[in-house]
Amino acid sequence: MKRILNLETLKHLERRIKVAGWVNSLRHHGGIVFLDLRDRSGILQVVSEPKLAEGIKEEYALEIEGEIKKRPIKMINPELETGEMELKAEKIKILAKARSLPFDLKELKLSLPKLLDYRPLTLRNEKIKAIFKIQEKLISSFRKVMKDLGFSEFQAPTIVPVATEGGAEIFHIDYFDHDAYLSQSPQLYKQIMVGVFERVFTITHAYRAEPSVTTRHLTEYTSLDIEMGFINSWEDLIDTCEIVIRNIFSDIEKNCQKELKMFGKTLPKLSQKIPRLKMREAQEIIFQRTGKDNRKEPDLEPDDEKEICQFAKEKYNSELIFVTHYPTKKRPFYTFPDPEDPEYTLSFDLLCRGLEIITGGQRIHEYEKLVKNIKKLFSHKIKDFEFYLQAFKYGMPPEGGFALGIERTVKQILELGNIRQASLFPRDMERIDQRLAILQGEENRFSSSPFAVARESKKRKSKK
Amino acid sequence: MKRILNLETLKHLERRIKVAGWVNSLRHHGGIVFLDLRDRSGILQVVSEPKLAEGIKEEYALEIEGEIKKRPIKMINPELETGEMELKAEKIKILAKARSLPFDLKELKLSLPKLLDYRPLTLRNEKIKAIFKIQEKLISSFRKVMKDLGFSEFQAPTIVPVATEGGAEIFHIDYFDHDAYLSQSPQLYKQIMVGVFERVFTITHAYRAEPSVTTRHLTEYTSLDIEMGFINSWEDLIDTCEIVIRNIFSDIEKNCQKELKMFGKTLPKLSQKIPRLKMREAQEIIFQRTGKDNRKEPDLEPDDEKEICQFAKEKYNSELIFVTHYPTKKRPFYTFPDPEDPEYTLSFDLLCRGLEIITGGQRIHEYEKLVKNIKKLFSHKIKDFEFYLQAFKYGMPPEGGFALGIERTVKQILELGNIRQASLFPRDMERIDQRLAILQGEENRFSSSPFAVARESKKRKSKK
Repeated sequence: MKRILNLETLKHLERRIKVAGWVNSLRHHGGIVFLDLRDRSGILQVVSEPKLAEGIKEEYALEIEGEIKKRPIKMINPELETGEMELKAEKIKILAKARSLPFDLKELKLSLPKLLDYRPLTLRNEKIKAIFKIQEKLISSFRKVMKDLGFSEFQAPTIVPVATEGGAEIFHIDYFDHDAYLSQSPQLYKQIMVGVFERVFTITHAYRAEPSVTTRHLTEYTSLDIEMGFINSWEDLIDTCEIVIRNIFSDIEKNCQKELKMFGKTLPKLSQKIPRLKMREAQEIIFQRTGKDNRKEPDLEPDDEKEICQFAKEKYNSELIFVTHYPTKKRPFYTFPDPEDPEYTLSFDLLCRGLEIITGGQRIHEYEKLVKNIKKLFSHKIKDFEFYLQAFKYGMPPEGGFALGIERTVKQILELGNIRQASLFPRDMERIDQRLAILQGEENRFSSSPFAVARESKKRKSKK
Repeated sequence: MKRILNLETLKHLERRIKVAGWVNSLRHHGGIVFLDLRDRSGILQVVSEPKLAEGIKEEYALEIEGEIKKRPIKMINPELETGEMELKAEKIKILAKARSLPFDLKELKLSLPKLLDYRPLTLRNEKIKAIFKIQEKLISSFRKVMKDLGFSEFQAPTIVPVATEGGAEIFHIDYFDHDAYLSQSPQLYKQIMVGVFERVFTITHAYRAEPSVTTRHLTEYTSLDIEMGFINSWEDLIDTCEIVIRNIFSDIEKNCQKELKMFGKTLPKLSQKIPRLKMREAQEIIFQRTGKDNRKEPDLEPDDEKEICQFAKEKYNSELIFVTHYPTKKRPFYTFPDPEDPEYTLSFDLLCRGLEIITGGQRIHEYEKLVKNIKKLFSHKIKDFEFYLQAFKYGMPPEGGFALGIERTVKQILELGNIRQASLFPRDMERIDQRLAILQGEENRFSSSPFAVARESKKRKSKK
């Protein structure tokens, strides 16, 4: 007999079928065993004689044959999509046994470090799986809208020859007899690809060796990166960004109701048009609202981002806001200065519920200007950029783009406390799968909650 | 006026329109300038008075307004999709200038090293772009067939704590105060994810520090990895693999005729069923055909792979063949031994036109057996695998999967001479974007064609 999925049992009333999955829970109730079987489609209730289910424990992988029956109305379980049905087990085959669970996998009342130490197990929890179903939908929506807008997907390399966006926060690789680095972003490659396909996007890993532990940084994250040429002005970029985010959010809203309900969350509110403010205007508003004077700061602090989002929510009923025109000196060498005010750039961040989730802007497309900037910022290093500069030497139209951090965006949608919850296998300064101190044998290095505090590490000695 | 794409001009006969793109070629012909404008949709012929086109050279980025006219029948260019039309230029705006090209970008008669040194420019060639259109179609077909089969896509991490598939060929990363590595494959993570979503796939970068230069290896490549649980036998895997490859090939055949024609190639021939041979049977056949006796070798050599593909083509009219049951001692620790003959494994390779493009097999899903294998192969290192082993400790059904190397597959479809041609930005022992020796200042280290010969490097000193 061919196995069917739990959800498919709805179409097999009174028939004999075979299902397979994991034991989500198990209750002995008088002379009957109630067993919730979990497969990729959902959970099915199974009733069995005690003899058939002998020795079976939670997380055993089983194959079960039996008859699908309608449950009495008062016993319908509205929490399960298969809640009207149950399987009367006739034959149970154990596919794999499981050790006793170290904690309750359904309740999962664990500290974050423990939740992550047991990731292969805790990922099986339905609520945790929901986070990654939303992630998957976010990525597939993004891909769909980009293709509809005429963008080509490309594969960006992640081993790179130079540090481009800040030298310290980069991982060094021993590359045979040479030095190489892990890419901080696909920026230079997506710009090169504009010269090839005009409109491109890539979904890739990006790496930041940030020597601190915060609730919003990972050392390896997934970046949705787009870049487009032949723009008329930088407003083409911010408008495209708005289209993309609206499409993604409405797609998640349509397809992930079950998952959102598990967290009691709704998608961030979007007004008719996402409000747009220059950074200096935002700072002025923050000063007026709080009395805290950051008006001369070159960037928004985390508290500023929260405050300006609060403002947008109150004034525009929008949980998203664009902040634009960041200062030239704080942005990377390729950022396009505003011709009307060259101390500021044609750049923007999209803030969502108090946190930046997208950053973008127009780029310098003129070869000579780029060379000048690189010489100024990297002094002798112009040779390292020769490859990249070819794209501009041989004709690059006005262009720009933006990047969305996927773990951050999912964190903000579900209002998770920590970005690590939105990464299947989060990497940070202190963790690669397991806590690094444990790998190294120092079991007691960690306090109970090391994730909330920023912490400086000993700086890695430069190889050069 | 809103810009339209070159291909859209077909719908705008006798109307005034605006297009934009790069100058693909330029010919002065009596009192007229013929200019081929290239955009993401294709090439459009533009005719202009010499005065309007003054100073314009190849690869300039232009915006052109004018009227779309039908060309006289005898002047129709069947090589262009827009060949029946031409644009009579009325206004030309230069968006970006280009330096004189260092070579003919349409002919592109370059050695491979030079082709790659100038990648940002050479990627603009229509024939080279075609390679990556096929790559994009391959990936999107793969994704579609996997989703249709009920697989979930997940993001595999690439920074990993241990070397699992051969310790030497792995890149070391300086990870704060710890050691870490670049993932050789998402194998361990996709197995963990079977415990979560049953059927999973990931499209990810994999890294091999192979200290040699061949026509079929890259240090960074793109892997399409799948893994599925609740299999009845390993034949479920090989059957799924066949479905996937058939879907991908037929999709490329349907959608990439133009690109295939540019290379004068057709998709590899598939017989009704892809032939399947055990490795020992293959070796026996090779011995009988060639007299060369490799029957006791633990693996197929490159020449053996070519010979057995030749055999499959002659006997079955198939350019693909599965070779199965590789010896246990040559496969990784997680490979499932054949219960009927434990010296061989339930594994398979799919060979295409003389080269392995897919490798797969059933995995050991029993915790105790895995622990035993890890202890045997990695001696004291069992602690390093604790995270991975959780997936098996807590109930893992019979499972397995396979992985397809995308650059290799595109190479074999188009019968390219070198895998580097099928990677946008190939990385190898001697190249990251540019040749590494040039980055290091040793301009003359390279002979004219360093790519065909295998070469050993000084082994990187281990950090441990």
